[in-house]
Amino acid sequence: MNCENFSISEKIVSSSYIRQGAQARRTHEQLIRLLLEKGKCPEDGWDESTIELFLNELAVMDSNNFLGNCGVGEREGRVASSLVARRHYRLIHGIGRSGDIAAVQPKAAGSSLLNKLTNAVVLDILKAAGVRTVSSCFVVPMATGMSLTLCFLTLRHRRPKAKYILWPRIDQKSCFKSMITAGFEPVIVESLLEGDELRTDLQTVESKIKELGPENIVCVHSTTSCFAPRVPDRLEELAQMCAKYEIPHIVNNAYGVQSSKCMHLIQQGARVGRIDAFVQSLDKNFMVPVGGAIIAGFNESFIQEISRMYPGRASASPSLDVLITLLSLGTNGYKQLLKERKEMYTYLAEELKKLAEAHGERLLETSHNPISLAMSLGNFEKHTKAVTQLGSMLFTRQVSGARVVPLGTEQTVSGYTFQGFMSHTNEYPCPYLNAASAIGITRQDVDLCIKRLDKCLKTFKREKGDQSDKLESESGNPATASEEDVSELAERFQEEACLGLRKL
Amino acid sequence: MNCENFSISEKIVSSSYIRQGAQARRTHEQLIRLLLEKGKCPEDGWDESTIELFLNELAVMDSNNFLGNCGVGEREGRVASSLVARRHYRLIHGIGRSGDIAAVQPKAAGSSLLNKLTNAVVLDILKAAGVRTVSSCFVVPMATGMSLTLCFLTLRHRRPKAKYILWPRIDQKSCFKSMITAGFEPVIVESLLEGDELRTDLQTVESKIKELGPENIVCVHSTTSCFAPRVPDRLEELAQMCAKYEIPHIVNNAYGVQSSKCMHLIQQGARVGRIDAFVQSLDKNFMVPVGGAIIAGFNESFIQEISRMYPGRASASPSLDVLITLLSLGTNGYKQLLKERKEMYTYLAEELKKLAEAHGERLLETSHNPISLAMSLGNFEKHTKAVTQLGSMLFTRQVSGARVVPLGTEQTVSGYTFQGFMSHTNEYPCPYLNAASAIGITRQDVDLCIKRLDKCLKTFKREKGDQSDKLESESGNPATASEEDVSELAERFQEEACLGLRKL
Amino acid sequence: MNCENFSISEKIVSSSYIRQGAQARRTHEQLIRLLLEKGKCPEDGWDESTIELFLNELAVMDSNNFLGNCGVGEREGRVASSLVARRHYRLIHGIGRSGDIAAVQPKAAGSSLLNKLTNAVVLDILKAAGVRTVSSCFVVPMATGMSLTLCFLTLRHRRPKAKYILWPRIDQKSCFKSMITAGFEPVIVESLLEGDELRTDLQTVESKIKELGPENIVCVHSTTSCFAPRVPDRLEELAQMCAKYEIPHIVNNAYGVQSSKCMHLIQQGARVGRIDAFVQSLDKNFMVPVGGAIIAGFNESFIQEISRMYPGRASASPSLDVLITLLSLGTNGYKQLLKERKEMYTYLAEELKKLAEAHGERLLETSHNPISLAMSLGNFEKHTKAVTQLGSMLFTRQVSGARVVPLGTEQTVSGYTFQGFMSHTNEYPCPYLNAASAIGITRQDVDLCIKRLDKCLKTFKREKGDQSDKLESESGNPATASEEDVSELAERFQEEACLGLRKL
Amino acid sequence: MNCENFSISEKIVSSSYIRQGAQARRTHEQLIRLLLEKGKCPEDGWDESTIELFLNELAVMDSNNFLGNCGVGEREGRVASSLVARRHYRLIHGIGRSGDIAAVQPKAAGSSLLNKLTNAVVLDILKAAGVRTVSSCFVVPMATGMSLTLCFLTLRHRRPKAKYILWPRIDQKSCFKSMITAGFEPVIVESLLEGDELRTDLQTVESKIKELGPENIVCVHSTTSCFAPRVPDRLEELAQMCAKYEIPHIVNNAYGVQSSKCMHLIQQGARVGRIDAFVQSLDKNFMVPVGGAIIAGFNESFIQEISRMYPGRASASPSLDVLITLLSLGTNGYKQLLKERKEMYTYLAEELKKLAEAHGERLLETSHNPISLAMSLGNFEKHTKAVTQLGSMLFTRQVSGARVVPLGTEQTVSGYTFQGFMSHTNEYPCPYLNAASAIGITRQDVDLCIKRLDKCLKTFKREKGDQSDKLESESGNPATASEEDVSELAERFQEEACLGLRKL
Repeated sequence: MNCENFSISEKIVSSSYIRQGAQARRTHEQLIRLLLEKGKCPEDGWDESTIELFLNELAVMDSNNFLGNCGVGEREGRVASSLVARRHYRLIHGIGRSGDIAAVQPKAAGSSLLNKLTNAVVLDILKAAGVRTVSSCFVVPMATGMSLTLCFLTLRHRRPKAKYILWPRIDQKSCFKSMITAGFEPVIVESLLEGDELRTDLQTVESKIKELGPENIVCVHSTTSCFAPRVPDRLEELAQMCAKYEIPHIVNNAYGVQSSKCMHLIQQGARVGRIDAFVQSLDKNFMVPVGGAIIAGFNESFIQEISRMYPGRASASPSLDVLITLLSLGTNGYKQLLKERKEMYTYLAEELKKLAEAHGERLLETSHNPISLAMSLGNFEKHTKAVTQLGSMLFTRQVSGARVVPLGTEQTVSGYTFQGFMSHTNEYPCPYLNAASAIGITRQDVDLCIKRLDKCLKTFKREKGDQSDKLESESGNPATASEEDVSELAERFQEEACLGLRKL
Repeated sequence: MNCENFSISEKIVSSSYIRQGAQARRTHEQLIRLLLEKGKCPEDGWDESTIELFLNELAVMDSNNFLGNCGVGEREGRVASSLVARRHYRLIHGIGRSGDIAAVQPKAAGSSLLNKLTNAVVLDILKAAGVRTVSSCFVVPMATGMSLTLCFLTLRHRRPKAKYILWPRIDQKSCFKSMITAGFEPVIVESLLEGDELRTDLQTVESKIKELGPENIVCVHSTTSCFAPRVPDRLEELAQMCAKYEIPHIVNNAYGVQSSKCMHLIQQGARVGRIDAFVQSLDKNFMVPVGGAIIAGFNESFIQEISRMYPGRASASPSLDVLITLLSLGTNGYKQLLKERKEMYTYLAEELKKLAEAHGERLLETSHNPISLAMSLGNFEKHTKAVTQLGSMLFTRQVSGARVVPLGTEQTVSGYTFQGFMSHTNEYPCPYLNAASAIGITRQDVDLCIKRLDKCLKTFKREKGDQSDKLESESGNPATASEEDVSELAERFQEEACLGLRKL
Repeated sequence: MNCENFSISEKIVSSSYIRQGAQARRTHEQLIRLLLEKGKCPEDGWDESTIELFLNELAVMDSNNFLGNCGVGEREGRVASSLVARRHYRLIHGIGRSGDIAAVQPKAAGSSLLNKLTNAVVLDILKAAGVRTVSSCFVVPMATGMSLTLCFLTLRHRRPKAKYILWPRIDQKSCFKSMITAGFEPVIVESLLEGDELRTDLQTVESKIKELGPENIVCVHSTTSCFAPRVPDRLEELAQMCAKYEIPHIVNNAYGVQSSKCMHLIQQGARVGRIDAFVQSLDKNFMVPVGGAIIAGFNESFIQEISRMYPGRASASPSLDVLITLLSLGTNGYKQLLKERKEMYTYLAEELKKLAEAHGERLLETSHNPISLAMSLGNFEKHTKAVTQLGSMLFTRQVSGARVVPLGTEQTVSGYTFQGFMSHTNEYPCPYLNAASAIGITRQDVDLCIKRLDKCLKTFKREKGDQSDKLESESGNPATASEEDVSELAERFQEEACLGLRKL
Repeated sequence: MNCENFSISEKIVSSSYIRQGAQARRTHEQLIRLLLEKGKCPEDGWDESTIELFLNELAVMDSNNFLGNCGVGEREGRVASSLVARRHYRLIHGIGRSGDIAAVQPKAAGSSLLNKLTNAVVLDILKAAGVRTVSSCFVVPMATGMSLTLCFLTLRHRRPKAKYILWPRIDQKSCFKSMITAGFEPVIVESLLEGDELRTDLQTVESKIKELGPENIVCVHSTTSCFAPRVPDRLEELAQMCAKYEIPHIVNNAYGVQSSKCMHLIQQGARVGRIDAFVQSLDKNFMVPVGGAIIAGFNESFIQEISRMYPGRASASPSLDVLITLLSLGTNGYKQLLKERKEMYTYLAEELKKLAEAHGERLLETSHNPISLAMSLGNFEKHTKAVTQLGSMLFTRQVSGARVVPLGTEQTVSGYTFQGFMSHTNEYPCPYLNAASAIGITRQDVDLCIKRLDKCLKTFKREKGDQSDKLESESGNPATASEEDVSELAERFQEEACLGLRKL
């Protein structure tokens, strides 16, 4: 309420109480003021009531919520369903304009503020997470892969003749496809096996640059966060190489914001060499729903060029989610989450090590990977089906995210054939199982995972030999339920009334 | 509740009441069953209670909501803020997989169902809206422009050597930029002036094809919905030409679903010639927040090729919005909205005509444009500022979407310079004002708009001559407030307490 | 946002857009201002966005939402569940203080405002609905019966020696029990049969007054809204009698606000005689959840005396519901609902009449009852079970609220035995069925009811004779499912998977 | 979804994923099943998703949510505002029937289940909190005072001639008024000063019984939770006396559920003597909004008699709140809250003791009071205004619940004059300040309170002498802001834009 309405209220309820109420309101306004003035994530998180007050205020500023508005355009922010209006806090106009996803909309002052503030708060958090010299960023309502594509498309205009992207191999489809979709030709650089780790082969990168000619290379496309035993690329050296040969450098930092190591690599790369943009997922780093990414960089004009490359308006939903989340956590809350993640990484590593040893396996030594761990599955017959079956067993026991990697899987993606797909290399010495300590993980997650994994490994040991003939699995998808699961599920369903109806 | 729980409840509350409750539950289940079985939009809209029940059921099927789940992956659908979880009905995993935006996710059976059903329901509605033979479509969480880009990028792989896109001019930045972003060279075909209308110059299109060579042309990129006096492209003839020369044909049907004429053009084009894909906005056609589009076509494998081109997962938010909306409207509700829109178009045309005549202007004759209308501003001096000022006046009077188009505006977009920008042609005979009857428009919108426009025109007439020297406006943006507005706003703010603080 | 924050926002987003946003906010504030100043229901309903903005503003003024509050009392408005906090808009402190349910709470300026405004708005609506001279009222979070009890308890202190309450019979348990609970002795005055109608026997009332002595009578307890064929009491004459003998007069106006006739009776009674308080249900008159009532009267100090009689704080939930509802409807919306109800009353009467005649029955002539109608069930055997069975059939066919009244039912309530219970008289000439046109009823309700009733009557006619021996019903409860229903329900459940599990 | 719909879904999304989804749903159902079967609070709290799923299921069973329902009654559970419907989870019919607030409603199987389950869960928690032999209870949507009134009104029917209620004095208006409202004459028994504590004067109670005659006494009305230096009544001895003289015994256990001591007293009283009912607040014990109470006892038929005394239906809102809260906490969560409260009590006592000593005051020794503490204000001049001013200062500094008690306050409540009101005795030796450790209190509450209190005491010391002449306060209300506050508030408001407008 404004001052006038507080004044009138004093005639209804005692002045002193109303004034205290007005004063209380002011404390919420002060928080909002700080946010607007500084454009930084608040240190301590906001109450839900302040967040909702703020979002309501923003909504009121958008023309679709003007009480006296009349609309005769083709896009007026009308909403047919009140469920939909409500879940978006009545912020309907999205973000950006046809010219620029970061631009301000005349019809939607509130949504425009939301967009600007979100980008500012996210920039602040990227700094706090370790990339202190990042100068510009924006949230884009596309996941990491498509955001990388947008970066590559932007580079096409800068380097019209270039057609190759140098890419140290990482077996994840989205980032590979991001290059294909942009219309470029990936040049795959295999990793070197150093101990258990798979690391960037710098020599081959440089020889490829020379072989193809720097002017024909769109960019180097490197990766930080990845599944062990691959480890983050040697960013410093790559960045120096890019600087030397004047080749742009785009870093896929998918879930690296949560790791100080990944962020440090980017900071160092930018300090000693060249990094044009680094891209990270919103959901993987900030515990929001899938669908947004942050494109960030050290040169404001290049980042702006990318934001201007996005044709048209875009969904405000990912921006809204990350803003709500960061306001409710505050910098301190986010840092606390990072700290807990790190602790859980250590705990997971210890527990996995114990478990591995108990089963005659070992935890691979991949100390350069700060998030993902791998445990060998050497005792398993070197038989894809057996390993895959373990994956299925874990899936049906509600262990999600534990990835088994058999040997010898071959897969073709967009016309390119990968040997040993999923293992980042043509032939890794042993099959293995991945587990990661990602932001938000709890001690209970680790304990349950270890317990169930232990049980599965025991079951497997007991049964192996007998069962191998009746195994079946969908190719390369460890998370897919096999027949075994179906029978197990059926068992669990036994007491259910449903059973009668099912044609199993 | 399942049967067992209903049974137990009978011991607490009389059997007959519980059974009636169970029976009532079953009627909700029947609606859900029909949706699952038929994959069609229900004829009559669902109650909010059925919709929320259904969404809750879907959420329960996603692994992030499993009560016994433990997660050791890098993406586990954890949510930090309960405000965020709630607004997404706890559906966190988004849609698609790295391989395909339409693919099913093992971790998220509920979100996967949501995705499949949304695409099915939307396909059903496209048919009901007039494109009866459309065979496949999918919702993508990007606005129209970026969706067009995705189509063009897909074509690159089919036609690696082609680099031109033939594009009958329409002055809207997103669709122009969609071609630039994809890395192609737009070949702009100016429209022909026929009466007041700007129509497709078929002859020039064909001569361009011959000139450039069909094999060098990525596609023809035509448009249905647009601002008058431009009218929808001659789709039938273009489609025939594309068939003849074996050139792909992508239609920008941005807000055309709401118009039976636009939909009919597409249906006809596909019948007699070639249309590979048509793209439409979710927000402009279905009254949901900005940020989603539908990519549809007549050849399932090509549409699937596009969906596979999207690298990685994507936000489920636009799918969720459109599904909620269509379930709550039902086919009948949506058709009713289309009917009302058509009626309001007629009403707006009549009222605008009367107003135009009263002010010595005329309603341009653009009967081929089923949505947008244009009223001449000939009596206005042919002075950009004057026209722009009218736009500002309307903006500050909360008439949104009324677009004024001065003559002689030159604008450069992505390196291409357009004469007469906004008017779709180098030199239209007169400045004019646009108003549209878009889905959701009410009689009150029309009445208020006419009333305020009338007042502005009168004010303007009174003042003109005196003021022209002090006018100022941001280039080409009629919706931008000028100084005039600021002083007017200040006036309105006069009684406000705030005033003291403002440094106006 | 306050002015300061708007100012800062202008540095982030263009001034003119922000100012328009600030202006838009002001229109919401103006609505709130009008409400605060006038204390009246707005003529036109508010948008949901204004309502929620207002409720958020109120919540912010309560101490449990102060950001810097520390609480060391025994009641601090803490909430354990965020679901609970949210559903109450964080207004936790309830209404009233230990001294007075209408009093202001120091800890809760917002809740106090809510309470005061609700009472003011409700008073305004009572006036608009016909009792123009009502001077005071308050919402109490108890249903009608308990609210009547509170009125009687208040009178005890004014008339310590009195112990009788004169009560023209109406067969509804709550209002009868309200006297018993208050510790008084009801003196039941039977109605007179005039035509089909049951009307107040004024002569007996007066003779009872004389017989018992006015000073021994706590009050006359009369009724407006009731089931036909009883009609509203002769309030004018009763009020005159009360004035003459100086006896308080409490009117049970349970669902009478929705009927201009009932409201007129009260207005007239107060004009020509004495009415001390009239009590009405919130849920039955304002389409809110069960649990609140309005106690209103013409003498402010007596109404205040009642409000002071309530010991302690009370739930704000019913006040919140009715305030939200009236703000969203506005006076015009509420009047429109009343108008539609009246029209549906006429329609229901016509349709019921036709149906009655088709089945050899008749619509009872009860024109003094403006809400409830009765159709004879004379052709039915005069057998309670048969009539009751009809009730059950309607219940299982989801016709709710259609009440069948057999003859000869005897029931004992709190030690008093009523002959012909439910029919308001010892022996009504025929069994009958009630249907009412209450606020919110739709044409579809009427049509479906008539259709299903027709079907039931036909079925019944066909089956009667055969089935009468196996009928069973819970005493006097027509809405209770009988065995017949169970078998019918079972039939409907046949296709259900559930069936296997049920022990029918 | 039922089994059928899961089956159909398998055709849309892979069987194994759907089955895992169905299995996940079953785990929610299992929780619900346990609740229905055992009628106990779950040990571990439920997720919000399970709670909402359950509430949605209940709502679907109520006739107002039947998709095919037609209503022709006077109360059909229609809701005008979707905001209102939503906040009640569409449970509109309230609880109870005209005959009994605990009865089942034919129209509302879901609400009826809610009511029954809430009472069962609450009973379970009362047992867990220490009254192991409690046999029956129900939630009533009235605060403690009105609930006590209902108990007394019920006793009237058992003891029609009795008119006195024996009441060991406690200075809280609601519980005193609860007797007045019920129409009885309180017989006030002053407490004895033992050390610093005020304790039950058993001898006087017994002599009053003899003096008035047991048959003339409605009941003894004792109290557990209260402000120090009063301590809980000697329940054991009172209960024995009640047994001996055959007098009912009603215990006001307002906020005693949170204290094992209070609960133990009740358990012991019932074991060795007579307790007919004990009444406790929902908000004060379970952190829900104000407005509900639990009436509990050891004799099921007496508790049922009370529930039948409530005339008519009632709001389900308090039941819904407490059910949601207990399901989300679980028994373990609730016990954890009790444990933390106890720890904070000790901490608060220590801190207050230190502070008192630093200011030349002392913490009163009131070890029998497990919740409330008192610190002497002896150094203060024995001047009501000075003490009251301290209260105001704390109020404006957002210390809520810290109650200052001056000497010599006289207050008349419902015609009875109390000397030394607020101090539970005619003349307590010194003025004092209360602070309590109530459920939900945090260490931060204590720290802030101590800090601000310290500051106030210092300020006061500095200023005393100068200011005493300009003090003013509303009689007896320490929480009321005085002029001093107003000027202080004005100071704080200084920077505010608002200031200009205010007429201070």
